[in-house]
Amino acid sequence: MSGALPTHPRFVSLEGGEGAGKTTVLNALREALREGGQDVVHTREPGGTPLAEMIRGLLLDPSHEPPAADTELLLMFAARAQHVHETIRPALERGAWVLCDRFTDSSYAYQGGGRGLDAGWIEQLERQVVGLRPGLTLLLDVDVGRGRERTRGRDLAPDRIESERDEFFERVRAVYRARATAEPDRFRVIDASAPAAEVAAEAVRLLRDWMARA
Amino acid sequence: MSGALPTHPRFVSLEGGEGAGKTTVLNALREALREGGQDVVHTREPGGTPLAEMIRGLLLDPSHEPPAADTELLLMFAARAQHVHETIRPALERGAWVLCDRFTDSSYAYQGGGRGLDAGWIEQLERQVVGLRPGLTLLLDVDVGRGRERTRGRDLAPDRIESERDEFFERVRAVYRARATAEPDRFRVIDASAPAAEVAAEAVRLLRDWMARA
Repeated sequence: MSGALPTHPRFVSLEGGEGAGKTTVLNALREALREGGQDVVHTREPGGTPLAEMIRGLLLDPSHEPPAADTELLLMFAARAQHVHETIRPALERGAWVLCDRFTDSSYAYQGGGRGLDAGWIEQLERQVVGLRPGLTLLLDVDVGRGRERTRGRDLAPDRIESERDEFFERVRAVYRARATAEPDRFRVIDASAPAAEVAAEAVRLLRDWMARA
Repeated sequence: MSGALPTHPRFVSLEGGEGAGKTTVLNALREALREGGQDVVHTREPGGTPLAEMIRGLLLDPSHEPPAADTELLLMFAARAQHVHETIRPALERGAWVLCDRFTDSSYAYQGGGRGLDAGWIEQLERQVVGLRPGLTLLLDVDVGRGRERTRGRDLAPDRIESERDEFFERVRAVYRARATAEPDRFRVIDASAPAAEVAAEAVRLLRDWMARA
């Protein structure tokens, strides 16, 4: 296995740990794309098709026995294979922009860093069933303690992955940052400890720079 | 990737196409094991744990969009990883026999032969997340037309995979037969065109021969 995976310029992903403020940023990015008159598909992982959303339900539901680490990884890639096949590739082929809340970088961060699965094995799956990376990935980077403090302000009960311990999220963050350093052409790192409006404005500025070049 | 995968002598799988009479044979095999005073775990794929049974539901449900071939394969292996981790290995480790309705050979036959996915890719998944083959695999072999004729006598509506065309099942059968030829120590092929009671008696005879050696 060698060679860089192909990227697509109109494929934009947003990544980040818990409490990084992804929702506010996603809404701002979507509006920025639409203001430019672009056809925008706003989607998410795991999910993005009816079947993939059902797989998401299995992944996050704490009512059955927890998945083994390999089970979790394969369910993530099963949902992703479906999402790419049914939603992402068709959208890119018709000329739309795709704005995706999490993509394969999340598997490297959560199942690789968090669960300790081998990055080479994750890359094999990525090459075999995904074969595509975003042109632009915005990483919302925030201190783990601060991010988790924000999520405790929410009304929702934590899902199965949100219930992990701080050390898990420290490993997740370390992988994200290492990937951003290794792929500077694709990644832009945003300091997400700033107020939400500032973070969203910075994300929109980075996206506009990218659109002007793409 | 090289080297044979390890097998376990108390792990017995039953394989075969549609209408081969697996249910009658499974019941006879289970009784034969129990008569010998053995602790027997009778299980099935996809399935065998609460989460894996939920994945089975997604795989066979025709109400959402059909899975892409890679999605189907990864869902099968996600369920299998969970099944091995939660059910099969613990049972073998405590000394039980495991009698399994379908195992990894089904993925080579249905997703490889039927859907045309590469056998080398399936083997990568098998090595990475399964790492174990049955000691004994009984293959119920029957002409595709005859097998399907039998399933049409059932009251149940066909599931998503049962709804495939005859050519699909011809490719499934060809892979099963090729695997049996390639691994004669593990496989026993039973002519399942005979009456059900004879097929079950032959399966029990082969199992007893195996138990006497194991």
